[in-house]
Amino acid sequence: MALIVQKYGGTSVGSIERIKHVAEKVIKSSTRGNKLLVVLSAMAGQTDALINLSKEITQSPDPRELDVLMATGEQMSVSLFAIAVKSMGHDCCSLLGFQAAIHTDHTYGKARIRTIDSKRILRELDTNGIVAVAGFQGIDENRNITTLGRGGSDTTAVALAAALNADLCEIYTDVEGVFSADPTICSHARKIDRISYDEMLEFASLGAKVLDIRSVEFAKKYNVPIHVRSSFTEKEGTMVVAEKKEMEKVLVSGVVSDKNEARITMSRVPDRPGIAFKIFEPVFKAGIVVDMIVQNTSVEGYTDLTFTVPRADFRKTIDLIHSIAEDIGADNVLGDEDIAKVSIIGVGMRNHAGVASKMFETLAEENINISMISTSEIKISCVIEEKYTELAVRALHDAFGLGDEKAEA
Amino acid sequence: MALIVQKYGGTSVGSIERIKHVAEKVIKSSTRGNKLLVVLSAMAGQTDALINLSKEITQSPDPRELDVLMATGEQMSVSLFAIAVKSMGHDCCSLLGFQAAIHTDHTYGKARIRTIDSKRILRELDTNGIVAVAGFQGIDENRNITTLGRGGSDTTAVALAAALNADLCEIYTDVEGVFSADPTICSHARKIDRISYDEMLEFASLGAKVLDIRSVEFAKKYNVPIHVRSSFTEKEGTMVVAEKKEMEKVLVSGVVSDKNEARITMSRVPDRPGIAFKIFEPVFKAGIVVDMIVQNTSVEGYTDLTFTVPRADFRKTIDLIHSIAEDIGADNVLGDEDIAKVSIIGVGMRNHAGVASKMFETLAEENINISMISTSEIKISCVIEEKYTELAVRALHDAFGLGDEKAEA
Repeated sequence: MALIVQKYGGTSVGSIERIKHVAEKVIKSSTRGNKLLVVLSAMAGQTDALINLSKEITQSPDPRELDVLMATGEQMSVSLFAIAVKSMGHDCCSLLGFQAAIHTDHTYGKARIRTIDSKRILRELDTNGIVAVAGFQGIDENRNITTLGRGGSDTTAVALAAALNADLCEIYTDVEGVFSADPTICSHARKIDRISYDEMLEFASLGAKVLDIRSVEFAKKYNVPIHVRSSFTEKEGTMVVAEKKEMEKVLVSGVVSDKNEARITMSRVPDRPGIAFKIFEPVFKAGIVVDMIVQNTSVEGYTDLTFTVPRADFRKTIDLIHSIAEDIGADNVLGDEDIAKVSIIGVGMRNHAGVASKMFETLAEENINISMISTSEIKISCVIEEKYTELAVRALHDAFGLGDEKAEA
Repeated sequence: MALIVQKYGGTSVGSIERIKHVAEKVIKSSTRGNKLLVVLSAMAGQTDALINLSKEITQSPDPRELDVLMATGEQMSVSLFAIAVKSMGHDCCSLLGFQAAIHTDHTYGKARIRTIDSKRILRELDTNGIVAVAGFQGIDENRNITTLGRGGSDTTAVALAAALNADLCEIYTDVEGVFSADPTICSHARKIDRISYDEMLEFASLGAKVLDIRSVEFAKKYNVPIHVRSSFTEKEGTMVVAEKKEMEKVLVSGVVSDKNEARITMSRVPDRPGIAFKIFEPVFKAGIVVDMIVQNTSVEGYTDLTFTVPRADFRKTIDLIHSIAEDIGADNVLGDEDIAKVSIIGVGMRNHAGVASKMFETLAEENINISMISTSEIKISCVIEEKYTELAVRALHDAFGLGDEKAEA
């Protein structure tokens, strides 16, 4: 008898009809002789509706209380799901964060899971066979409700799979798996059958929305195999697993683009020890996540510094950086919101030279200028003008031969 | 510094505007130097909306899971209320049933409060001054969510007032207090300033909707003074308190009517020991609440038995009673849904003869036939034809001089 963790996202439980459909799917898995631990998100639209309700009161609702409000979304889906399963003649029991004993730190709105006390879950699994756990929520050490932030239900699922040593963790979503490129940009994008945790981490952090990055970190840390698949078809999706030797034969797994960043440049920064700290500390303190940072070699004691931030934080950052530039005697601050980051990812890059130059060559052939470059062991990212995003993705996808051959033919 | 428990019903928190209004009222009480423990119901309509959602899945949703679903209603109101109070610059903290440690038995849908561990509440009151507790919900010994049934938030408020030894328990509702009769029936009905627990119990059990009966039982048991008042005016409402000598001077406090019952008569029932048990045991087992029971003196070994049940259970009861009648050899089963129960209530009755005869006389003068009579120390109820309800209420109200003199003049 296998223990399977299944997670269904907001679209999959977006209506009573869909909740019933998920109940049927789960019962089918259960009657094959498996124990099912089902993690659910809030019904699609519910989380936004709750946020909007709080915004009718104030633009900056208290974080603790906002989490109490948000947690009702998943509470609704698990209870409705359990009602559906039981109405179909099968046992089921819902558990909320405090009942499933999902203990987190107390960072409201983006709490991190610390421990899960699996006693109650195991007991309910033994009694019922099917247990529904509210995703996205936990409790801190004072039994305050916390939420894990957007995509948090993925993390709940993987953390539960790790804590219970589940045989498999299936993440059901509205796409069929991880693709070599966004199929809406690249019509012959190919579904990837197997991908390593590290590659998936790059996919997630570089703009692919399919899995929350913290859930992949968790899966890697505890070696939980994840199966990302669609709740609307029976097709196999993408297995996210520990890296295997044969994965390195594939040079590049996929191309990802991200239009949610903006670029800021400080020019003629006096180059002395501690200057980067002086510039970025106020930015970090303001809760702004800086992505790429590029610093040129210093010329005559001055350097240029460019970095990217989420586009939503652009104005705030520009204001902050202006006052910092004055403080440290930098020359000028430039900003650009019309940029995109295009990245290629693949564990095969580690042992192959020439991948970067092929990427640069491909973009050059399309007359696309590169304004920033950032590399890691298994990915290369280039910042380009936003309007060339789709062209760049398609050109790179073709250049590295990622397409589905059948679709291309 | 006084500790005040305030409870606001669904209409009082029926919109974001109204929640803000309640927040302002509570802050006003707080800045007068009081500690405020605020119990909230779900926003008006929310509870029904949740029930309807579950009914889209099945007509008989699992009781445990239905309680998990229902509990989201009060969770929403307390978090929104706390967001409102904090946005107005005051400290506040919401607590759910499991956090406030409101322990109940495990009768889902109509659980009874067993104990309240007030540690956390007291700590939060010390820190914040204002604490919002979700009404209507608790947890059983296995930390399952339970709900207390319709009107449960009143009970939460009174139980908290008792557990914390509060100075006052204010129940804010959409009417101005307890009236000598329903003002929609009797235009010159008078607001009662003070009423005893026992009278209030009769009011509540005989059809007045203003306070949940269990909350009055609780208040009587722990001697918690309740102030029932409107959240839309500043006027004083009705104080529900322990009986005082001077209350007995008033013969009758009010007239109440109830159209939610139906009558069933079994005729020629063989009169032998154990027959009542044989008839009513299956009815009780089916969860049907029998209200009045009248049995005539036996004639030639046979008796007639008449009783009333909630109108919603009428069909079910009739079917049950038919099969019982066959079993025990009774002659006939008659049912009538078009009845009403009209009652007069007053602690003064205890020491005054002639109240009953005045009631019967008044009804006779209006040509209203009485089909059942039931009395207690402080109330007399008569079952009459439904169509005479309003006429009977007005006639009794006048006969016992309950009207507001100013309104009458």
